[in-house]
Amino acid sequence: MEAYPFTVGLIRVITLEREEDRDCHGRLIMEYFPELRVISRCIPDQPEGVHSPETEALAAPKIVALAKELREEGADMILVSCAADPAVEDIRTLGIPAMGAGECTAAVAGRYGKRVAVLGITPDAPSAFERLLGEGLIDASMPDGIRSTLDLQTPEGRQSAVDKAAWQKAQGAQVIALACTGMATIGLAPVLEKELGLPVIDPVLCEGLFAKLEMLRRDLYR
Amino acid sequence: MEAYPFTVGLIRVITLEREEDRDCHGRLIMEYFPELRVISRCIPDQPEGVHSPETEALAAPKIVALAKELREEGADMILVSCAADPAVEDIRTLGIPAMGAGECTAAVAGRYGKRVAVLGITPDAPSAFERLLGEGLIDASMPDGIRSTLDLQTPEGRQSAVDKAAWQKAQGAQVIALACTGMATIGLAPVLEKELGLPVIDPVLCEGLFAKLEMLRRDLYR
Repeated sequence: MEAYPFTVGLIRVITLEREEDRDCHGRLIMEYFPELRVISRCIPDQPEGVHSPETEALAAPKIVALAKELREEGADMILVSCAADPAVEDIRTLGIPAMGAGECTAAVAGRYGKRVAVLGITPDAPSAFERLLGEGLIDASMPDGIRSTLDLQTPEGRQSAVDKAAWQKAQGAQVIALACTGMATIGLAPVLEKELGLPVIDPVLCEGLFAKLEMLRRDLYR
Repeated sequence: MEAYPFTVGLIRVITLEREEDRDCHGRLIMEYFPELRVISRCIPDQPEGVHSPETEALAAPKIVALAKELREEGADMILVSCAADPAVEDIRTLGIPAMGAGECTAAVAGRYGKRVAVLGITPDAPSAFERLLGEGLIDASMPDGIRSTLDLQTPEGRQSAVDKAAWQKAQGAQVIALACTGMATIGLAPVLEKELGLPVIDPVLCEGLFAKLEMLRRDLYR
């Protein structure tokens, strides 16, 4: 038995200069599931990340290229660590096992309640939430005054997220799914759970959970 | 830190005399997730288990009573280890955290493909599969000639399950969800995965996965 028997290649869909920023999601996943080994990579030349159809199209071939590289380096599977799941289907067509943070989060959120609200940084819910939650998806909103996850790190930004989530609860949401991995990085889920008293689903925790499941399935089934 | 910091109370919705039969699901979950402690209990006076609306109604108050007992014994959450999720909502109304094997399996299956077939031992899919998969649920079938999971343990029964799953694949299923925890006990998922080459989702593995998530959420958020 190797020390790290299962390797996850994690792709950040944003260009980050500092290693500790690049490794942030992977570090969280290894904290939750110490038996996983996560190698993180950033796509080049997109310091603004993916936040529109245009930037997603620009990123897609870079994501696929990184997935191939990570497989060659021994990755057992690829995580695209973004709630929009960019290029995940493209990677799968190459025969590389791949998951996106969005589909993992949407799948988990459905179990926690019949009426799910999505809190993100885009005006619409990412496609996996629409596909997996269907009529159970009662709202998709972004906090007022927030344009990026950086804005959430101020006291005003955090309060804006709490206010929007409280509004979603008032609309009948039984669970809130965070549709931006940057919201995991800043630890928003515990803040909202404590304020609102309902389950708040964190995308990085969810992608880690499904990576753990793949590790178990490999060990049990192959 | 205790040796077993998170305790799952697992309810079998069938009366089983032998301790090793009663503990079978819990033993599998602790094999997958050694950091969980699982205590298993059987409902009394139902050696035929739950397999119809009548037997489900008969079992419901017994399941709720066991959930209360398990909480008093220190369980952090309750797993109702049956794909029909009997009495799960009733337990929740008492303020006891509870999950059913059906909802956990349905949630996981949705992530593995857009077109899901349910293979069970009842003619219809349990309600969580309909709720969580919606139009993604393309078929619910039972193997021909199978009336209980005991029948699946013979070579003929196993072949009948393989045949039905192959038929579901031919109908366009991208993933097969097993809607009977007895199918986990006999290790049907690996057999079907090897035969068919598509993901086959095991209900006991899925309920363990969501119990692990609850343990993590408790440690991270409270």
